[in-house]
Amino acid sequence: MDNKVDTFSFKVDPFDTDCFNQLSWKVLGKQILSVATSHARNRGFDKYDKDGIPYLWVLSRMVVEIDRYPRVGEEYSFSTWIKNYYRYFTDRYFYIYDADGNVIGRVLTIWAMINSETRQPADLKSLFGNEFDQYVCDANEFEIQRSRIRVNHPCSNMVRHTYYTDLDTNGHINSIRYIEYVLDAFPLSVFQQNYVSRIEMEYNAESYCDDDLYVNLEEVQPRQYNAEISRMTDGKMKCVCRSNIQFSQS
Amino acid sequence: MDNKVDTFSFKVDPFDTDCFNQLSWKVLGKQILSVATSHARNRGFDKYDKDGIPYLWVLSRMVVEIDRYPRVGEEYSFSTWIKNYYRYFTDRYFYIYDADGNVIGRVLTIWAMINSETRQPADLKSLFGNEFDQYVCDANEFEIQRSRIRVNHPCSNMVRHTYYTDLDTNGHINSIRYIEYVLDAFPLSVFQQNYVSRIEMEYNAESYCDDDLYVNLEEVQPRQYNAEISRMTDGKMKCVCRSNIQFSQS
Repeated sequence: MDNKVDTFSFKVDPFDTDCFNQLSWKVLGKQILSVATSHARNRGFDKYDKDGIPYLWVLSRMVVEIDRYPRVGEEYSFSTWIKNYYRYFTDRYFYIYDADGNVIGRVLTIWAMINSETRQPADLKSLFGNEFDQYVCDANEFEIQRSRIRVNHPCSNMVRHTYYTDLDTNGHINSIRYIEYVLDAFPLSVFQQNYVSRIEMEYNAESYCDDDLYVNLEEVQPRQYNAEISRMTDGKMKCVCRSNIQFSQS
Repeated sequence: MDNKVDTFSFKVDPFDTDCFNQLSWKVLGKQILSVATSHARNRGFDKYDKDGIPYLWVLSRMVVEIDRYPRVGEEYSFSTWIKNYYRYFTDRYFYIYDADGNVIGRVLTIWAMINSETRQPADLKSLFGNEFDQYVCDANEFEIQRSRIRVNHPCSNMVRHTYYTDLDTNGHINSIRYIEYVLDAFPLSVFQQNYVSRIEMEYNAESYCDDDLYVNLEEVQPRQYNAEISRMTDGKMKCVCRSNIQFSQS
């Protein structure tokens, strides 16, 4: 078990909060990616080179369940481990703990490793052999279900233009920025009366600087919405990512 | 000297960079604010209560000169101290160092303390007496000049709508977000051939969620621009902040 799970601790900086003094999604999301990378780097599988071609992990799906957000000044931590791996994907889970060790959140992320030239997913066994077997563990006593997300009858839509500061290290729109585009599709009053208790992101395609992204929202149940973010590609609207977001009353 | 200067160290996380693998302004700017707050907190003057009314530091001006940006994985640090204080303002300086102790940046910030109810600046001497005298020091061997920033003949203008995720803990648009609005007013190609070597921000007024901010840019010299960000207030365009930005060839 010791070799399989890593724990990373943080403290909520006054400039890492939203307007309700709670850890912002900008920072929470970034830390999930960063913690995943550190766990992989500690075991030497954060990146891979084959025949001089770099292979990179890309995030395919992320589900975050939050019971309570850490507040300014509060310490919190993530533990993370690999739960499963398949031909093209790995399931990575996380617990989020408060300073007293209580679980305040649960996360599932699903990653593929792509060839950085062809952008095609690689067969993990052909890259790593059985190397992953030693890291796989079943530390979670919870299961996170994936949803089938579709927007059929949008109740609202907006356009977000993309800029230099929205880009990640690969020149694509930062994965976490899409979460912000979904959150920003709601009026501020929603966040005054509710908190985001679950968010699921399904990443399908990349978008770039100077894109117009169309954010469509549909209420599927009370306090539960599906969202699709699309861009015009070769004369057709193509879905870049999908999201399911659930609010609970504050 | 020991009691006057604090140093804070960081490492560039893979998710803290722009698309050129350099520390992003989102993170750099946030760390300047955070380091300032920590230095003040370490000496007990990060906030103040008088007759039950909280007083808060607000950023009035920031000038950042960068010779070289730390790259992904690189360690860097800030040292900070109070250089001067006046009736309503304090001058706080910073050096930014690389891992070898070379100076790679210099920062001036000017702060006022406001009454959180009236939003009026407080007389620092009446709040703190001579308490600041013991912290003031002259650790900088450089002076940073302030500019008079005006946009007379805008060469480009754009509108930025503001959203929930742009807000800071006080419900105003985050000070660092304005830097991003200025950067985003340039095409990506500018950043491919140049880097931002100096940015000056003059903060005049607050803006809020669901505002339309008008970003006007004027080239004042080759590779040097002034910017004004304004919002409609009581039927008139009012300047929220001004910026001078200088590029150097990469």
